[in-house]
Amino acid sequence: MTAASPIKVLGIDPGTGVVGYGVLVADGPGRIGRLVECGVIRTNAKSALPLRLKAIHEGLEELLARHAPDALAVEDIFYATNVRTTAVLGHARGVILLAGAVAGIPVFEYPPATIKKAIVGRGAALKPQVGFMVAKLLGLKSAPRPADAADGVAVALTHLLRGGQPARRGLGGTRG
Amino acid sequence: MTAASPIKVLGIDPGTGVVGYGVLVADGPGRIGRLVECGVIRTNAKSALPLRLKAIHEGLEELLARHAPDALAVEDIFYATNVRTTAVLGHARGVILLAGAVAGIPVFEYPPATIKKAIVGRGAALKPQVGFMVAKLLGLKSAPRPADAADGVAVALTHLLRGGQPARRGLGGTRG
Repeated sequence: MTAASPIKVLGIDPGTGVVGYGVLVADGPGRIGRLVECGVIRTNAKSALPLRLKAIHEGLEELLARHAPDALAVEDIFYATNVRTTAVLGHARGVILLAGAVAGIPVFEYPPATIKKAIVGRGAALKPQVGFMVAKLLGLKSAPRPADAADGVAVALTHLLRGGQPARRGLGGTRG
Repeated sequence: MTAASPIKVLGIDPGTGVVGYGVLVADGPGRIGRLVECGVIRTNAKSALPLRLKAIHEGLEELLARHAPDALAVEDIFYATNVRTTAVLGHARGVILLAGAVAGIPVFEYPPATIKKAIVGRGAALKPQVGFMVAKLLGLKSAPRPADAADGVAVALTHLLRGGQPARRGLGGTRG
């Protein structure tokens, strides 16, 4: 890939209730790019986990088919104090990584602190600061709403700013 | 469903490296049934997690298509001392529960201690005891090999012995 090849990346902030996503296109790695689309996939809180996972997977498949991104960037697991929360989040990430593998595109994983550091400059940045900086970097009038959508954009932006090179391998993402 | 309706259940012992499975058919709930097939889905330890999840999901899809079971029974998450292990296992379970949801069959989850208690009579039973009792209950000459396959059979057997009623809802399985 030459420096001038355009890159389209789908960034994902995983969750079982809400999955935030953002699609960015840049002229090449290290460029900021422009926002193509962002939003959230919401699942029914009353549905059993298998059905919520199905909704998440179908949402990912739709986004991958419609945007045909060159890479999938996913926020790495957040090790919650409650191990059950971490376990459930793992299920959601599982079907998201699967969608990337089935689409045949490289999957990159970025730890939460790496994303905050890339966007705000500090690994311990607060959520509103991430949204504010996402808007500033992309020249948007305001931060994408809801916050989960801004988080999805932040993951995609982190991928571009880092030139497609994750800080470290996540739980098992590919390097492309 | 009448008491005499045959039930086919696919039992799964989840993992990222090896997924054990067993297919049982019984005359009805509460019956022991007979072993139709058991085995393991192995993933390449050198592959990145998204590709391993793809292999697991494809393996599940193949089993579901070939056996068309009435229910999917999955061992509930094991909360390992290492939270990372629990998180990675969550990813594997995610694509397994997804396969059940996509197939449109009810997914049941049984905690490890419930399975051991149902098969051996004690929640703290050792792995070889599970294999031994699986063989004894199903009238097999020896325990299914490898041990993960026996564990998959044990999950299916637990589902039948409990009459299709899990001890409690797992992370989010359906009750059918």
